[in-house]
Amino acid sequence: MSSTAGLVIPCKAAVAWEAGKPLVIQQVEVAPPQAMEVRIKIKYTSLCHTDLYFWEAKGQTPLFPRIFGHEAAGIVESLGEGVKGLEVGDHVLPVFTGECGECAHCKSEESNMCDLLRINTERGVMLSDGKSRFSINGSPINHFVGTSTFSEYTVVHSGCLAKINPLAPLDKVCVLSCGISTGLGATLNVAKPQKGSLVAIFGLGAVGLAAAEGARIAGASRIIGVDFNPGRFEQAKKFGITEFVNPMDYDRPVQEVIAEMTNGGVDRSVECTGSINAMISAFECVHDGWGVAVLVGVPSKEAMFVTKPINLLNERTLKGTFFGNYKPRTDLPSVVDMYMNKKLELDKFITHRVPFSEINKAFELMVKGEGLRCIISMED
Amino acid sequence: MSSTAGLVIPCKAAVAWEAGKPLVIQQVEVAPPQAMEVRIKIKYTSLCHTDLYFWEAKGQTPLFPRIFGHEAAGIVESLGEGVKGLEVGDHVLPVFTGECGECAHCKSEESNMCDLLRINTERGVMLSDGKSRFSINGSPINHFVGTSTFSEYTVVHSGCLAKINPLAPLDKVCVLSCGISTGLGATLNVAKPQKGSLVAIFGLGAVGLAAAEGARIAGASRIIGVDFNPGRFEQAKKFGITEFVNPMDYDRPVQEVIAEMTNGGVDRSVECTGSINAMISAFECVHDGWGVAVLVGVPSKEAMFVTKPINLLNERTLKGTFFGNYKPRTDLPSVVDMYMNKKLELDKFITHRVPFSEINKAFELMVKGEGLRCIISMED
Repeated sequence: MSSTAGLVIPCKAAVAWEAGKPLVIQQVEVAPPQAMEVRIKIKYTSLCHTDLYFWEAKGQTPLFPRIFGHEAAGIVESLGEGVKGLEVGDHVLPVFTGECGECAHCKSEESNMCDLLRINTERGVMLSDGKSRFSINGSPINHFVGTSTFSEYTVVHSGCLAKINPLAPLDKVCVLSCGISTGLGATLNVAKPQKGSLVAIFGLGAVGLAAAEGARIAGASRIIGVDFNPGRFEQAKKFGITEFVNPMDYDRPVQEVIAEMTNGGVDRSVECTGSINAMISAFECVHDGWGVAVLVGVPSKEAMFVTKPINLLNERTLKGTFFGNYKPRTDLPSVVDMYMNKKLELDKFITHRVPFSEINKAFELMVKGEGLRCIISMED
Repeated sequence: MSSTAGLVIPCKAAVAWEAGKPLVIQQVEVAPPQAMEVRIKIKYTSLCHTDLYFWEAKGQTPLFPRIFGHEAAGIVESLGEGVKGLEVGDHVLPVFTGECGECAHCKSEESNMCDLLRINTERGVMLSDGKSRFSINGSPINHFVGTSTFSEYTVVHSGCLAKINPLAPLDKVCVLSCGISTGLGATLNVAKPQKGSLVAIFGLGAVGLAAAEGARIAGASRIIGVDFNPGRFEQAKKFGITEFVNPMDYDRPVQEVIAEMTNGGVDRSVECTGSINAMISAFECVHDGWGVAVLVGVPSKEAMFVTKPINLLNERTLKGTFFGNYKPRTDLPSVVDMYMNKKLELDKFITHRVPFSEINKAFELMVKGEGLRCIISMED
């Protein structure tokens, strides 16, 4: 039992007061965890596009003040009533989606879309009592996707915490909380390329490169990267990308270009941009008879997926995935182990590091499109 | 070696001279098989919608005179040069698509879309020399999809013949050449429902009922049949259909009706109508997280499959299939054995029988939508 258990913890957090305005590092009070909740001390967090998207609040109902952050690693400080399988001091990854273990999705071998703890970007409070655990002078501050890791301490539902190998370096494995696992799992769990396969990856940001890393691990013989930015090709080679296609270089659809390069199409494709045109190209560039396309990127609400039915009838498969089909509690520990066993290379995703006091620099880097992951160290 | 080997065989065939006009039973000459071809004596044939569709010639370039027919069972009469794995007297099912054994599709475990022998409805001649083996007074008569089973003798590429158990009754297993295997395989090979699953079948014609039969064999707990014709429900019960939904009875999309009936959607759906709206409904009625929709029916060329990407991203799978993903030579013998072992019930598909001389009655029945399969006996 920690000395702070049951007490309100005052600590530093980066509070977003307004859409698109720099976060303010200030003191917040973090209430003790309620039933089935866990309070954790965040050690490292990183910035993901979803934070940026909701901070910019261009496409949704703004919810401020709010503490963002959902890619992180931390240590359990105290446990609410009824929490099982976790102890004070455990190393954990908080995840924006959860695993209650009881619903039809958790009981299905195929789904990770837990009914109870599925991501909810509109909710700024905890599930159990509809209240926030964060406050400043008694005024509540909104949570973000149940994690709010831009705070020295945060409270998370126990179903959203993956207990991991305590030897794993938290400043590396924190990136497995979201984007990297999403791309990696899309390839390894959903596309499932066989050794020697031809794979196309649409979008060479962090998620797409994680999908490429999955194809590299699976032993793909050719990994074709598709991106509008040719500057990304050099970096992408480190992730196994063997060939680069810029759709701007052609006056015909990129799916036709890829089909020509591959004698009819790739065996697997993974779409990581969220552009509806890329989604359609990613589907139509897989080989008839056996090709599988996996959609990861989230498009605008108005977008419609359109294709000729013959593309399906010719034995192509189209699938979508959420968080790489990983069940957070059940599966993430083994992804951490994949890194510990040197099968999965994480270091190459980490291009920048800043102390917590300079968290706004991480936002600036991402707005400029520089780098892949910026690790924010809470203790510096 | 048969006494007719190497000779032209004069025999009776049902010749279609004009689109939509009754077939004429008359004498044709059937040339000996060339390299890699086999001449077979047809014992029983049945009528499938694809025959009707090309006989009506409403949607394609008409090709007449032509000998239709592609669901059949027969006996090998003689072999062309180089044919392996078949002998005179073997019992065979001719199939409209083939298996060369050498191409990328044949070598893939997942595909049955042979590059060499894939269905070609526009070709009226044999592949090897571009000539017909049928003639009347020296004038060639067109083949149909490489089978032309509405003839006492026909010539087929050896890659399009499945050698089957000689004990199997040919007047039953002839229906496995096309429609029944297409629906059965769509469920068993592609949708793959687990025991206890909820399955929806769109379209309760012969192919849809074969898909339902697959779901029954797989042990589905509920099989929901969707059709505009309520008269089909009584018959459908024999094929395992437990519930019936007529989209006309509702003022909201049928996918919503099915989702309400099943607490969020079915585990698997199989679309066997070819209506683009049914294809979209079949996809959108499967459960998020694990649902798989399989498309079988062939829509019009102008039709476009349209859905919101979130339907995919929520972990649904959309697949198409051709001939139920069965490789004709490799897999059909085991489907025949499934019937011999009483696992697959074929008799209930056979609703009518006519002698060859009355083949036009089979067309009339199908035009009226009566019955499922009409067996045409060549020797009566």
